[in-house]
Amino acid sequence: MDVREFVEASAPEFAGSLREWLRIPSVSADPARHGDVRRSAEWLAGYLKEAGFPVAEVWETKGLPAVYAHWPAADPAAPHVLVYGHHDVQPADLADGWDHEPFDPVESHGRIYARGASDDKGQVLFHAAGLRACVAAANSAAPPVSVTMLIEGEEESGSPNFAALLRQRKDELSPDVIVISDTTMWAADVPSICTGMRGLAEAEITVAGPSRDLHSGSFGGGVPNPVHGLASLLAGLHDSGGRVTLPGFYDAVVPLTEQERELIARLPFDERAWLADAGDSRATYGEAGYATLERIWARPTAEVNGVWGGHTGPGPKTIIPKEAHAKLSFRLVADQEPEAVMASLVEYVNSNIQNGLVVTVQPGHGVRPCRSPIDSPAVAAARRAMERAFGRDVLFTKEGGSGPEADLADILGAPLVFVAVGLDADRIHAPNEYVDLSRLLRGAESVAYLWEELAAAGASGR
Amino acid sequence: MDVREFVEASAPEFAGSLREWLRIPSVSADPARHGDVRRSAEWLAGYLKEAGFPVAEVWETKGLPAVYAHWPAADPAAPHVLVYGHHDVQPADLADGWDHEPFDPVESHGRIYARGASDDKGQVLFHAAGLRACVAAANSAAPPVSVTMLIEGEEESGSPNFAALLRQRKDELSPDVIVISDTTMWAADVPSICTGMRGLAEAEITVAGPSRDLHSGSFGGGVPNPVHGLASLLAGLHDSGGRVTLPGFYDAVVPLTEQERELIARLPFDERAWLADAGDSRATYGEAGYATLERIWARPTAEVNGVWGGHTGPGPKTIIPKEAHAKLSFRLVADQEPEAVMASLVEYVNSNIQNGLVVTVQPGHGVRPCRSPIDSPAVAAARRAMERAFGRDVLFTKEGGSGPEADLADILGAPLVFVAVGLDADRIHAPNEYVDLSRLLRGAESVAYLWEELAAAGASGR
Repeated sequence: MDVREFVEASAPEFAGSLREWLRIPSVSADPARHGDVRRSAEWLAGYLKEAGFPVAEVWETKGLPAVYAHWPAADPAAPHVLVYGHHDVQPADLADGWDHEPFDPVESHGRIYARGASDDKGQVLFHAAGLRACVAAANSAAPPVSVTMLIEGEEESGSPNFAALLRQRKDELSPDVIVISDTTMWAADVPSICTGMRGLAEAEITVAGPSRDLHSGSFGGGVPNPVHGLASLLAGLHDSGGRVTLPGFYDAVVPLTEQERELIARLPFDERAWLADAGDSRATYGEAGYATLERIWARPTAEVNGVWGGHTGPGPKTIIPKEAHAKLSFRLVADQEPEAVMASLVEYVNSNIQNGLVVTVQPGHGVRPCRSPIDSPAVAAARRAMERAFGRDVLFTKEGGSGPEADLADILGAPLVFVAVGLDADRIHAPNEYVDLSRLLRGAESVAYLWEELAAAGASGR
Repeated sequence: MDVREFVEASAPEFAGSLREWLRIPSVSADPARHGDVRRSAEWLAGYLKEAGFPVAEVWETKGLPAVYAHWPAADPAAPHVLVYGHHDVQPADLADGWDHEPFDPVESHGRIYARGASDDKGQVLFHAAGLRACVAAANSAAPPVSVTMLIEGEEESGSPNFAALLRQRKDELSPDVIVISDTTMWAADVPSICTGMRGLAEAEITVAGPSRDLHSGSFGGGVPNPVHGLASLLAGLHDSGGRVTLPGFYDAVVPLTEQERELIARLPFDERAWLADAGDSRATYGEAGYATLERIWARPTAEVNGVWGGHTGPGPKTIIPKEAHAKLSFRLVADQEPEAVMASLVEYVNSNIQNGLVVTVQPGHGVRPCRSPIDSPAVAAARRAMERAFGRDVLFTKEGGSGPEADLADILGAPLVFVAVGLDADRIHAPNEYVDLSRLLRGAESVAYLWEELAAAGASGR
């Protein structure tokens, strides 16, 4: 039997095991479910051991446990691949609009409906199916590459302990390539590979004026108003072309290549459908010279997430408020650094604050952007592998959001490649999440081929 | 005895009566004190009757009662003067920082300390002393002009029922001149006359974007952000010269005359002391080409009183908020109309809102500005009267705040003249409010002379 035949033959067992796992409500954000997150880790470690991994164990963190499993290649010189995914899930409640209990999986017309079916349990589990098929099809006892699975238990809670775990276990892990299976493809019939995720830099700005709220009749028109000062700073964050005005903001940005832009343009993008999905937004907006997908994937942004100051209750109050506040976040792209953006923000506000007002910046959380270049050998191997599995051209996307992927690449010092078969249509983080079983099986096939491809390329896959 | 001698001779009785009235805690803003506001009205009506007013009665409103008193001139053709003041007071509590009980008046070194001593009971009561002195000095049984006192009971609560009372009693009142005794002089040694108060136009602006908060990773950089749209509108309210940018905003503004500017410039203004008083503001700011006093008295303004939108709680939340809000107030000067300013605001926001966002304006309270020109016969008479009482040059000021004075002028169709002897230093609306008895007696003298001056000028005082 070849890989595909092995994968297809494993389908009933695969679906049954996934349903079993999905019954464990491993919601990391809910303290009442933390016992279930641990049960989920134990279930996965047991399952991977049974699937053939010589080592499969629960790794403790300061928070909720991860799962580590390792299956060495027969050839000690073969490349070492680390697979990242997570076994915790988003909260889900029947009352939120589910058609059935979110932790009582329903299988229907080739789909499994349950919280975590696509994000991320289905995508973690296809790795076991793929690796077994790869080993079996080669009539071997071991895979052609050494495979480590590192499956986090706090991704849906912002991965608060993951970087520490990586630093602690860095020497044991030391992969040549990191495979991320926690993103999406463009569409069921448009397989694609993510080539980067944006980073994040958060800050809170405070503009202070008088020591107390002033009567706007007595003083209005004679002293600066902190809300006006803040509004000017916020309005000035973008120029008329929608570009962020912080000094040097774009200096470190790796420009999109012509090839990347062509590949993004090849994606069948329906702007009206996208606007409807964007809370029925009435129009697109963004940096001049870039298409919407480029803007949300490959260009950095500045957003005000919240603003407040002065009288915000019912009725009027004719004051000059003593201060005003805003919460900002910047989405970053490679090779921008959160710390550099914060320094630039401080420079910007100090240079532009109205005379007589005082502005302070409180930096917040920072996440570095990550990049997985189209022309890297690992991405090329993944593209060939997915094309074999799906029988279609593989296109390229990016993700606008931010996750622990940059930490993986930075701390472990290895390139990233995104191999995932989720879809936005899977209703990730929403009621009635589901996944197509056939799509997960194509994922299993993809990684089986990928291990072959990477073994053939040798450590140069890096 | 002449007027001054009569006034001086009445000092002990005057101080005793004022202390008695100040013991009534007539706080209109406190429902628990509404019985006291009524007691205050009854006390005043009784006092004015005893002082010689043939008619003195409590006038009911939909809220708290006013006091009406009338003393007709012997000559039915003599001008009819209406005096406006109020008998309700600001809240006051020992715990706010008073050195003694605010409603147990303390007399010390020629001052009376109590809530309402200056604002406005002392200034209402000097009219009784002045009128009696005027009548007595003339050896007459009636004053040289017909005098009506209309003393409101809800001024410190925004005069919610005063305009209705004026409309209802308009025919009975019908004065030739309205004398306002509820403002301040420049300083104890710089007597002055207020020549205008600013009006007010309030509004709330809402900027709406998507139908729900959007994830800033997935959508950030691709759709307009309502907080950015609001910030642009607010930042754009002023040009670089500090002028309000609403279309036609200044069209109806009566410009300051050279004479007015010269007179304002003659006031001994200490900018550092003023900034300290303005909540330790670090710098002045305002419309280019105008001095601080001109800006806060005689020029219209736009102020943001409050702003809010998106995430305002602790910690970050990486969203594009679905909407953002601001509360605005405009201080207006003659002859601006609140309704016209609102129409202009609507035009401004609609012309300047970022594409893809929707802005709405909810108009609020409006108060028309009032103006009492320096060259009006009534103001000229008041100036002569105050110069006789104080033995000093009388200068001219304006008030930046807004009150029911424009309603008085508009509804009763008569010119305003401000005759008042309060000071900012009297700690009006603050703990340890006080007044100098000698200053109140100069007020009494001033109005006694003013009635003579107006009688001499005849109805042309109008």
